[in-house]
Amino acid sequence: MSKLYERYADEIAELIRTQVLRPGDRLPSVRQARASRQISPSTVFQAYYLLEDRGLVCARPRSGYYVKDVPLRRSAEPGTALPGAQTTAVDISDLVFDVLGSTRQPEVAPLGSAFPSASLFPLQKLALCLTPAMRQADPARWQEDLTAGDEPLRRQIAQRCAADGVVVDPEELVVTHGAMEALNLCLQAVTRPGDVVAVESPTFYAALQALERLNLKAVEVATHPRHGVDIASLTEVLQRHPVKACWFMPHFQNPLGSLMPDDRKQAMVDLLAQHSVPLIEDDVYGELYFGLRRPRPAKAHDHQGLVMHCSSFSKCLAPGYRVGWVAAGRFARQVQRLKLMTTLSTAIPSQLALSAYLQGGGFDRHLRHLRRALQAQQAVALQAIEQHFPVGTRVTRPEGGYFLWVELPPQVDALRLHRAALAAGISTAPGHLFSADRRFHHHLRLNCGHAMDGQLAAVLQRLGQMAERLAQVARG
Amino acid sequence: MSKLYERYADEIAELIRTQVLRPGDRLPSVRQARASRQISPSTVFQAYYLLEDRGLVCARPRSGYYVKDVPLRRSAEPGTALPGAQTTAVDISDLVFDVLGSTRQPEVAPLGSAFPSASLFPLQKLALCLTPAMRQADPARWQEDLTAGDEPLRRQIAQRCAADGVVVDPEELVVTHGAMEALNLCLQAVTRPGDVVAVESPTFYAALQALERLNLKAVEVATHPRHGVDIASLTEVLQRHPVKACWFMPHFQNPLGSLMPDDRKQAMVDLLAQHSVPLIEDDVYGELYFGLRRPRPAKAHDHQGLVMHCSSFSKCLAPGYRVGWVAAGRFARQVQRLKLMTTLSTAIPSQLALSAYLQGGGFDRHLRHLRRALQAQQAVALQAIEQHFPVGTRVTRPEGGYFLWVELPPQVDALRLHRAALAAGISTAPGHLFSADRRFHHHLRLNCGHAMDGQLAAVLQRLGQMAERLAQVARG
Repeated sequence: MSKLYERYADEIAELIRTQVLRPGDRLPSVRQARASRQISPSTVFQAYYLLEDRGLVCARPRSGYYVKDVPLRRSAEPGTALPGAQTTAVDISDLVFDVLGSTRQPEVAPLGSAFPSASLFPLQKLALCLTPAMRQADPARWQEDLTAGDEPLRRQIAQRCAADGVVVDPEELVVTHGAMEALNLCLQAVTRPGDVVAVESPTFYAALQALERLNLKAVEVATHPRHGVDIASLTEVLQRHPVKACWFMPHFQNPLGSLMPDDRKQAMVDLLAQHSVPLIEDDVYGELYFGLRRPRPAKAHDHQGLVMHCSSFSKCLAPGYRVGWVAAGRFARQVQRLKLMTTLSTAIPSQLALSAYLQGGGFDRHLRHLRRALQAQQAVALQAIEQHFPVGTRVTRPEGGYFLWVELPPQVDALRLHRAALAAGISTAPGHLFSADRRFHHHLRLNCGHAMDGQLAAVLQRLGQMAERLAQVARG
Repeated sequence: MSKLYERYADEIAELIRTQVLRPGDRLPSVRQARASRQISPSTVFQAYYLLEDRGLVCARPRSGYYVKDVPLRRSAEPGTALPGAQTTAVDISDLVFDVLGSTRQPEVAPLGSAFPSASLFPLQKLALCLTPAMRQADPARWQEDLTAGDEPLRRQIAQRCAADGVVVDPEELVVTHGAMEALNLCLQAVTRPGDVVAVESPTFYAALQALERLNLKAVEVATHPRHGVDIASLTEVLQRHPVKACWFMPHFQNPLGSLMPDDRKQAMVDLLAQHSVPLIEDDVYGELYFGLRRPRPAKAHDHQGLVMHCSSFSKCLAPGYRVGWVAAGRFARQVQRLKLMTTLSTAIPSQLALSAYLQGGGFDRHLRHLRRALQAQQAVALQAIEQHFPVGTRVTRPEGGYFLWVELPPQVDALRLHRAALAAGISTAPGHLFSADRRFHHHLRLNCGHAMDGQLAAVLQRLGQMAERLAQVARG
């Protein structure tokens, strides 16, 4: 359980998020809070200090605490991009490898990385789970649970799913080598070479790479930067194309950070059910919400067994352990067979250590700290972008995750900026990576999951100045 | 280093294997050994006790030690099966899953298992490596070595390869999620749907499943139960079919246990180079030799970068850790990219623990114990089969690994025997699984990697009696 001051801070944060409290509004005074909530002055102050750390409020001397100015106006968010109407054979891997290969050096500021900082995770605690878990293990059991994965771990995952509104039988679950394997297995279970798969626009390049590897064609669905998949666009795509599957990320989509509201998810699941099209739901960022509650997966709305829910511990607990899972509905058996054929089973030490960690408690506490750290870093990043990026820049304000999607003035080529920045020791993920037809040429995905010893704002300032120079050169 | 008595025992075992010493021959007396080798009587006795444990020699009271009778005559080995000349679309997965799914219960005697007993491995020592390795690790490094794998581990693997005569640049190596992933990545790197791939006959069912999954066609190459791939048959196959790759297991082939002599491997590699056909070399059993030296991989004979050498620690050190590797020659970059696209990276705890274990020493000592245990169990199994299986049964006598390939009298259907045995608590792997056209219908692969608390012989006796009943029913 979170502490009292943390709960009170979360409530205030939610009021700010939903704009019940707006920039410049004063927070309740100690006296008001004590009267309305029966909480002590020190609890109130602890809560406000926490909100200050998270970049949401500021103190004015002898006056009280106020909601901070929103660093960017709502109008400065990017709009919904219109995808091409055609299916596209995918061929972006060379570009992805070129760009990502160059961002791996430890001395480069990792704004282009897909991963949050390892310092955000309880790696020492997890390490302590490994040896005892393996010493106590019964190797005879490994054979039995070989492909589906460790049975206690599957039960723990099913329990967490249940708390999020998804009823999953542990027998339906397959523990995978990260969510990446889960997604690939799902795609293989429901498609054949040449099939058409619907993806978001922009979409995560790994989805495009998976399509490319399996000789599938992509059709893009318009995706709102805040509310995710556009239902009208999806309807049209389903009418026009023989779509065999959708690969969507309803929560904190990579790269947009969009979060589909519940009614939209419901409408999407119903629409797909009408067309009998399976949904591969990539939910790896679901735990990284800044609101009060975990968003309910699309799978929670599914009554047909068509939603294949994929997630992992890699982004919220245990990077490098490579433990993900899939609850594949009516395709569960096929997925399990494909797993057996391709990688046989998931690494036992990783599975048992995670099971022991979950058993020991502390996961929810870790998640609360993680979410706050990410939210605070997002606030820092948004402010730096507002201050230092060229006039006309638009940026998303996701309600979870650790990505920002930046739309630069149209004359700034993101690939040129990427190269210039890399030469200066800063990696970025240019928008070219996020679409089969490379439409997002003046966009960037920026990772604010690395505090960089307090240098995040300074690094963004340098990047903004480089973007400004490119904008000026282009303007002549 | 092995101890003096172990080295002396190994020398004697090699003399028996090469038939310099034949069944019934007397081993050197203590006096002879002391005179010729300057070793003490206790060393001689320790060596002979060890050979007795391994089932190779027996003591005759007041007379000395003698080479044991070979339980089966050489004539009782199976012959080379003639494969069909056509390519075959593969469709065996249902059968494989039915058979294997039923063999996973812990109470079933695992003669049908593909894995040796977990009790043969230093699982406690490995477990002790996990926590310290992860506590000392630098997570910043994981990103850098993300897809290729932990750099120190790759160097250790390259060092072991060098000792086996294979010069591999650590940059060429990709650490994979077991050999299974390595083999699948290789297959994908060099084929497109519809291509023809040459496999051994009989061949490991996982190879057939991988072909099925990737919509590839199989063409089988005649394979000698003792000497492996038949060069004349391979020549013919290459002339007749547009073969895009070969997937062979030159050492202790699954299921035959065949070991290709060096000159045959050389001829095979040269032949494939003439045709520019890549070889996917599955070498997971290479360390499990009973002879004096590890057989040299086919890759040691390759000068064109056409051999993709795949192996793992799963069968020789660390089952469940899921750490394999591939040195993919000229295809290394493609393999690394496919790895990035499908499973991203291999589990870090497994990689670091294995690296720490290898660093600490003891691997070679473990391997010597493992090989002896497997050889002793093979001797037990061969003797039981000789005594209790129907007249006309033939069986291989592999020089490594833990499989026996049993050819029953033609009237015994292996699938019927499998079902009857399973009902009696004994699993087997019927020959039907080992060919795309299900030709091996009176064959079994039996696993002698489980001592079963001394019950291996008794279990084989029961199985032999069931086979005998089926043979009698068929004879009427």
